[in-house]
Amino acid sequence: MQKRIKARALSGYPEWLPEARLVEMKWLDLIRQTFESYGYCSIDPRSVEEVEALVSKGESQDTDKEIYAITRLAERGAEADLKFALHFDLTVPMARYVAQNYDSLVFPFKRYQIQRAWRGERPQEGRFREFYQCDIDVIDNDRVSMHFDAEMPRVILEVLDKLGVSPVRLHVNNRKILEGFYRGLGVEDPIGIIRIADKLDKIGPDGVRSILLKENLVPEATADTLLSLAQIRTTDLGFVDAIRALGVSHPLLEEGLSELKTVVEGLSDIAGGRVVADLSIARGLDYYTGTVYEVKMTDYPSYPTICSGGRYDNLVGNFLNRKLPGIGMSIGLTRIFSKLLAEGKIKLGPKTPTQVFIAYLPWTDPQKLKQTAQSLRSRGFNVETHYEAGKLDSQLRYTSRKGIPYFWIIGGETDPPHEVKNMTSGAQVPADPATWSPDGEVS
Amino acid sequence: MQKRIKARALSGYPEWLPEARLVEMKWLDLIRQTFESYGYCSIDPRSVEEVEALVSKGESQDTDKEIYAITRLAERGAEADLKFALHFDLTVPMARYVAQNYDSLVFPFKRYQIQRAWRGERPQEGRFREFYQCDIDVIDNDRVSMHFDAEMPRVILEVLDKLGVSPVRLHVNNRKILEGFYRGLGVEDPIGIIRIADKLDKIGPDGVRSILLKENLVPEATADTLLSLAQIRTTDLGFVDAIRALGVSHPLLEEGLSELKTVVEGLSDIAGGRVVADLSIARGLDYYTGTVYEVKMTDYPSYPTICSGGRYDNLVGNFLNRKLPGIGMSIGLTRIFSKLLAEGKIKLGPKTPTQVFIAYLPWTDPQKLKQTAQSLRSRGFNVETHYEAGKLDSQLRYTSRKGIPYFWIIGGETDPPHEVKNMTSGAQVPADPATWSPDGEVS
Repeated sequence: MQKRIKARALSGYPEWLPEARLVEMKWLDLIRQTFESYGYCSIDPRSVEEVEALVSKGESQDTDKEIYAITRLAERGAEADLKFALHFDLTVPMARYVAQNYDSLVFPFKRYQIQRAWRGERPQEGRFREFYQCDIDVIDNDRVSMHFDAEMPRVILEVLDKLGVSPVRLHVNNRKILEGFYRGLGVEDPIGIIRIADKLDKIGPDGVRSILLKENLVPEATADTLLSLAQIRTTDLGFVDAIRALGVSHPLLEEGLSELKTVVEGLSDIAGGRVVADLSIARGLDYYTGTVYEVKMTDYPSYPTICSGGRYDNLVGNFLNRKLPGIGMSIGLTRIFSKLLAEGKIKLGPKTPTQVFIAYLPWTDPQKLKQTAQSLRSRGFNVETHYEAGKLDSQLRYTSRKGIPYFWIIGGETDPPHEVKNMTSGAQVPADPATWSPDGEVS
Repeated sequence: MQKRIKARALSGYPEWLPEARLVEMKWLDLIRQTFESYGYCSIDPRSVEEVEALVSKGESQDTDKEIYAITRLAERGAEADLKFALHFDLTVPMARYVAQNYDSLVFPFKRYQIQRAWRGERPQEGRFREFYQCDIDVIDNDRVSMHFDAEMPRVILEVLDKLGVSPVRLHVNNRKILEGFYRGLGVEDPIGIIRIADKLDKIGPDGVRSILLKENLVPEATADTLLSLAQIRTTDLGFVDAIRALGVSHPLLEEGLSELKTVVEGLSDIAGGRVVADLSIARGLDYYTGTVYEVKMTDYPSYPTICSGGRYDNLVGNFLNRKLPGIGMSIGLTRIFSKLLAEGKIKLGPKTPTQVFIAYLPWTDPQKLKQTAQSLRSRGFNVETHYEAGKLDSQLRYTSRKGIPYFWIIGGETDPPHEVKNMTSGAQVPADPATWSPDGEVS
């Protein structure tokens, strides 16, 4: 007698029924097609990295603790010597892969990566322990053209459009503006302040202000100026004048302004105010050094960012004796899909990819059944046959319950032709396996 | 100054360069298409299971020790309390998923699953710590039709054919024959003996014989009869008479013979002697109860089995208060791909999915460049543009180094039309982005 084990969902590990998985696969196909249409190539690095490669490259020190290390079950009870761990995003593995294969890659290296990642964080809405991310990055020697700062959001918005994820807004900023502005104001630790200002979205201007003042990080007037900067949002180039009006100047600020102008101009043909220069966006990750992006679903303002990314000067520097700059964006696929599924915004269809179900009735010739199935398969259709001779009713019920659109009845030995029934309309018409198509439903 | 970390390969964790990954993705597409063409639907269960669900469901007790448990890095140094682990195959997660979602699934449930799995075993040729498997299974209430015992190898052989994995041989047997035969001979522990006989391939008849006799498991005459059985291999129904000639009888043996006949007959249209009734095949897994399969690459006789599977009566029984029988097969994708890649049997092509590279020359109108790219993309082509105006030579070199087949030159402001250069033949012809196709290369 076997011990009974409960088959149960695990918090933070989403799974879908077949009908939802079919939609998720359509999404994955569309994402891949769009990435490839811009010349990004797939890489599929291992899920496991050396712990020291993962630690302290994440969004914060907290991420370190959330890393899932692996250890063989045979070592249960022993003190865990944790050398290897599952990746928590797709950026560190990409950097390690590029460094490791540097001599075999052609630069600029445009790669995409669609994989699961793992984080041991407390599960909550939009935060999972296992999830899919879909990343694109361009990495080059010495310099990555600003062309790609505009290409990234263009590709990502095209993907979201094709998936029907709407309405969305892409917020873009430049870390050089923030750092230059802060330096121009005489702030000593701009990176530290950027991390605090990044919380604006969560705790509001008053929250940020009180942290800055309570910890005596900046004088009150400076805090006000910083907050004025962080509240600038424009869908056009208006941000330039708005920043200049604050009366701060610094060479790095000028550089950042010029870069952000280039990006916003480069995306000016994207309709619907979907691109916003937003001076509050900072992205916590230490490695960003220029353009930074965040995408939000505007119907769910408190829901976490669904896509993000930015430009970095030196991502592989801890692996390689050279700096390689790059720019990238990431789509939080599971985050988007799970939310829209929960909100009933995803139309679920059939429970199977089968397009045609072929009945096996008491008088059906099994050879003819096999031939008909193979003929339709060879023409690209997904076909199931009933596995043995049986009643029409139960086969129709199965076809209906799985949401299979067409039910095929093999013609008799002599006269009657094949017939195919449209399961939605109920119409049943003659059909020829060599020529039938689901649109015309002609034989 | 950052600490330098070596970017290196990890033994047992294969990774491919972009040109090989492109082929692997074509393989994944072909596998998926073939599975779907027979009506199998995708499921994508989490990578992580509760340890107690994984333990002792594998090929042997050894597998238990090879399971990779996960633990948060924050728990480093503490005594590891290992409750969760990565799956080591796709069967246990499927069983748990089916049990968990029993009421939402329609039976017979035909599912496929293409995922990574993890095993902490000593890496050696064909054995990895992280690898892709591609499984199909049919699960039903009460009874699974014998139809599927023949469908499984048909689908798997069709996949291998499409992938160009050849020559291969599918060995099929039935556990009921073995168990019935052993019982008919008066063997007390048929399952124990089956496990030993399963080593025939590795240690030869003499090896099996000496284990059986040394441990006094069976009398000498019985050992000889068992070995005679295990050496029967026929590509037709000849195995029936060969077994009967051994003079053993048992009802279970009769049942097994009848089932194996059905499978071999059902596959009789598969050419080239690729299907062999092989009475030595046992499959170590405890849960198989009827038909069992193994596929070998005949060019590499000592290389491990590349596909395997079989029929089971009760896979979800430890999760659910009912038995669900099923039958399935698994393709060891990484095992096959890595071997053929190492043997130079996989033709590597481009390093990118890009089909057309559009030059950006000093006189190119950037608007026209963008429009041309979008026009070609909207027609389904994968298109890269150079990121900024530059020299023809370096752009041609990039195109050539990445293996991109077509190089596009934008027409001038007035007269000259677009031209496209075939990078293989060197031919350069006029082209229109609205009508160009790579085959005809006509404008």
